[in-house]
Amino acid sequence: MLNTRADGEARRPAPAGGERSLLSNIKLFEGLSAGQLTALEVASRYRRFSAHETIIERDSVSTDVFFLVRGSARVVNYSLSGKEITFDDLHEGQFFGELSALDGRPRSATVIATEDSLIVSLKARVFLDLVLETPPLAQRLLLRLAGMVRAADDRIMDLSTLAAINRVQAELLRQARAEGGDRNAAVIEPIPTHSDFASRVSTTRETVARVLNDLARQGIVERKRDALMIHDMQKLKQMVEDVRG
Amino acid sequence: MLNTRADGEARRPAPAGGERSLLSNIKLFEGLSAGQLTALEVASRYRRFSAHETIIERDSVSTDVFFLVRGSARVVNYSLSGKEITFDDLHEGQFFGELSALDGRPRSATVIATEDSLIVSLKARVFLDLVLETPPLAQRLLLRLAGMVRAADDRIMDLSTLAAINRVQAELLRQARAEGGDRNAAVIEPIPTHSDFASRVSTTRETVARVLNDLARQGIVERKRDALMIHDMQKLKQMVEDVRG
Repeated sequence: MLNTRADGEARRPAPAGGERSLLSNIKLFEGLSAGQLTALEVASRYRRFSAHETIIERDSVSTDVFFLVRGSARVVNYSLSGKEITFDDLHEGQFFGELSALDGRPRSATVIATEDSLIVSLKARVFLDLVLETPPLAQRLLLRLAGMVRAADDRIMDLSTLAAINRVQAELLRQARAEGGDRNAAVIEPIPTHSDFASRVSTTRETVARVLNDLARQGIVERKRDALMIHDMQKLKQMVEDVRG
Repeated sequence: MLNTRADGEARRPAPAGGERSLLSNIKLFEGLSAGQLTALEVASRYRRFSAHETIIERDSVSTDVFFLVRGSARVVNYSLSGKEITFDDLHEGQFFGELSALDGRPRSATVIATEDSLIVSLKARVFLDLVLETPPLAQRLLLRLAGMVRAADDRIMDLSTLAAINRVQAELLRQARAEGGDRNAAVIEPIPTHSDFASRVSTTRETVARVLNDLARQGIVERKRDALMIHDMQKLKQMVEDVRG
């Protein structure tokens, strides 16, 4: 079926009538016709990555846009001393690599597969032409970038004004909200490792462990085998608001 | 000439033939025809702000986009304790307020006029319709947002991995580059105040003073009445690279 190339990449033949496009679960492309998706697929490459394999290397010069058809990935950077700073966790249906596609500059971050993943890529020119001639796509891409700016600005505020223990509490609240909505209890599962958690708020594993232990002692969180239970969202929210305003 | 309204805002009549549009120096709108600019002006409001006056209040609910026709403005946030964090300095020809126009969420930051300024505003709907039906504008807005994401991510890295004194050195290098290009000497003028400088890298005035004094003692910078001279960009660059990689 596949014309496998020497470098391990493959071009996929256009799907036969009735076959579902690989790109049909990409949220950015919602609303495109089957014909448009097929045309995109013909222009795309796809490649499998194993968990922990690097998809994009920071500072490398390339401008393709990548679509996470299956699997998950993490956007990270490393300090000179090897400290890992996590920028985002990406899931099935999302995309990445759009910054270099837009501005032609080297990659701003490293992207690593966190599970075995299937990634479809498009050349920057193909991606940009499509986006600019399809207003709903342009609007979605603008919204995505606006969301990235807001999230980054919030993080800058937290890094600039909060102590590490408060940043851990704030991140816990953020993850609980992403999972659970607005009730007073929430479940975060699977449990993020202490080092994943630390990498998201730029602190150490030891600080994360200390904060979680403190919160457990107060009955606000409870660690189960596979999940972190939040028993008192209200109290956690109050702790964060007391320092963040 | 102006139909001044009770709230101090004004609608401007369409410019007569030959009159230059207020919006003609807005870089985002480069390439629009005189007729398109006139149509935009008819849909716009404009208002003067004095230096230090607030243009947008963080968390307020409004979605207009603002264009800096004359003057300058600063994008800031304040911590609960009153610490000021500067996100951006905006100059004539730039715009702001696009995040809320795109996503309808409350304002992410406060914007304050730093000089007497003339600001033209457009309703979100008018702005978005124009952007989405004019690919070169959509592309410029995408580029602007991509630049904001890159700058914010760099700042997150610096805040996460550099000591305050190194962040001051890095900001000095950034400002010198913005002024001067790649030669070994550069001039930053006017001199930013220590508190402006501190607010851009989330540290204290005292730390900024200490770093500048240290650099002056080493002959790397020199403070003149109205300007900060950088005598050895290469050395400064090396100091930053030694810690940032």
